[in-house]
Amino acid sequence: MDSLKELKLKIDEFTEERNWNQFHTPSNLAKSISIEAGELLECFQWSDTDYDLNQVEEELADVFNYCIQLASVLNLDVKEIILKKMEKNAKKYPKDKAYGNSAKYDKLWE
Amino acid sequence: MDSLKELKLKIDEFTEERNWNQFHTPSNLAKSISIEAGELLECFQWSDTDYDLNQVEEELADVFNYCIQLASVLNLDVKEIILKKMEKNAKKYPKDKAYGNSAKYDKLWE
Amino acid sequence: MDSLKELKLKIDEFTEERNWNQFHTPSNLAKSISIEAGELLECFQWSDTDYDLNQVEEELADVFNYCIQLASVLNLDVKEIILKKMEKNAKKYPKDKAYGNSAKYDKLWE
Amino acid sequence: MDSLKELKLKIDEFTEERNWNQFHTPSNLAKSISIEAGELLECFQWSDTDYDLNQVEEELADVFNYCIQLASVLNLDVKEIILKKMEKNAKKYPKDKAYGNSAKYDKLWE
Repeated sequence: MDSLKELKLKIDEFTEERNWNQFHTPSNLAKSISIEAGELLECFQWSDTDYDLNQVEEELADVFNYCIQLASVLNLDVKEIILKKMEKNAKKYPKDKAYGNSAKYDKLWE
Repeated sequence: MDSLKELKLKIDEFTEERNWNQFHTPSNLAKSISIEAGELLECFQWSDTDYDLNQVEEELADVFNYCIQLASVLNLDVKEIILKKMEKNAKKYPKDKAYGNSAKYDKLWE
Repeated sequence: MDSLKELKLKIDEFTEERNWNQFHTPSNLAKSISIEAGELLECFQWSDTDYDLNQVEEELADVFNYCIQLASVLNLDVKEIILKKMEKNAKKYPKDKAYGNSAKYDKLWE
Repeated sequence: MDSLKELKLKIDEFTEERNWNQFHTPSNLAKSISIEAGELLECFQWSDTDYDLNQVEEELADVFNYCIQLASVLNLDVKEIILKKMEKNAKKYPKDKAYGNSAKYDKLWE
């Protein structure tokens, strides 16, 4: 089975088995993504290079998990929304203009 | 091709074409995930129910995108780390104890 | 002594006594503010109304603490930067236009 | 007037004049703090050292502003909660143990 489809099924099942759907509103899931993103960032709080890879793995997995849940409750196709946004980004950041440049698009086009 | 593999390839290509790998350290990607998670949360800043679905889609896509990049630079398999963390979560939140209960595991086991 | 001056002195002393200044770069402090903001948000993860006030107090205090530290390392006057930004906000959100309206300024002026 | 008292009064007035109190629930303010913390972090997204100080000032001011508002709606005294939390932190991070050490307290005491 396709990996994203499989993950969605397993995560939905995990939630249903615990009767947690009642808590998983879009807004609460968006909060959860921010909270887990903060825990991921904590791995790099005082050093950019000296981090615990196991911890990073776990926190990143949590962010992914809530992202997949938010897509699920909103009936969004993960692959589709990523590809669609990448097309938009490709226009905002054309290869030649953005090459080796980390400026935000509003600065890039000045 | 499997969706996660395809997304990883496309996102890696997007980054390489812009010579952005130099900026995409694990720490900078963790920051980026937090930043985009904040933009996603902004969709729900003043209301839990009255949100712009298109905006949510785009911001969620950005969070996913940076998560896939972080997994990529760390050579992590996205599906594997999510399933591994879910196993751990299943132990922290057993179905019977956690049923219909949003308490954090440290409170759940008190 | 003025409260903000007193807090700055006490926090600076706390940091120096632990020789932590070396870790407290502006970037690390900005990360720390995001991390603590995530912990504060966790108090409201699954409910907007059923929160632990003691927990909220402590997490809010941590956010304030790192904000005061960031102002300190950048030699910014906290009162001054807040008042300056409020003047700017007053122009973006004039009383009549913004009255009872939570729209962002770019929508407000459409 | 004491700076924190003055800021609270001015910010409360700003909110009342716009009839925004209805939006400023503790939960929405906690979200707002996270959102603004993300915007502050964006100043350091791709570089720790090459940041726009004006931008940092404004984003930091926004974080402070929402923190003061959250304290206000919860009737918390900002100075008091910060000093109280610092006492707790002083016990978690005693000077001798924590000197020059950025480890989290759970690692510090191992």
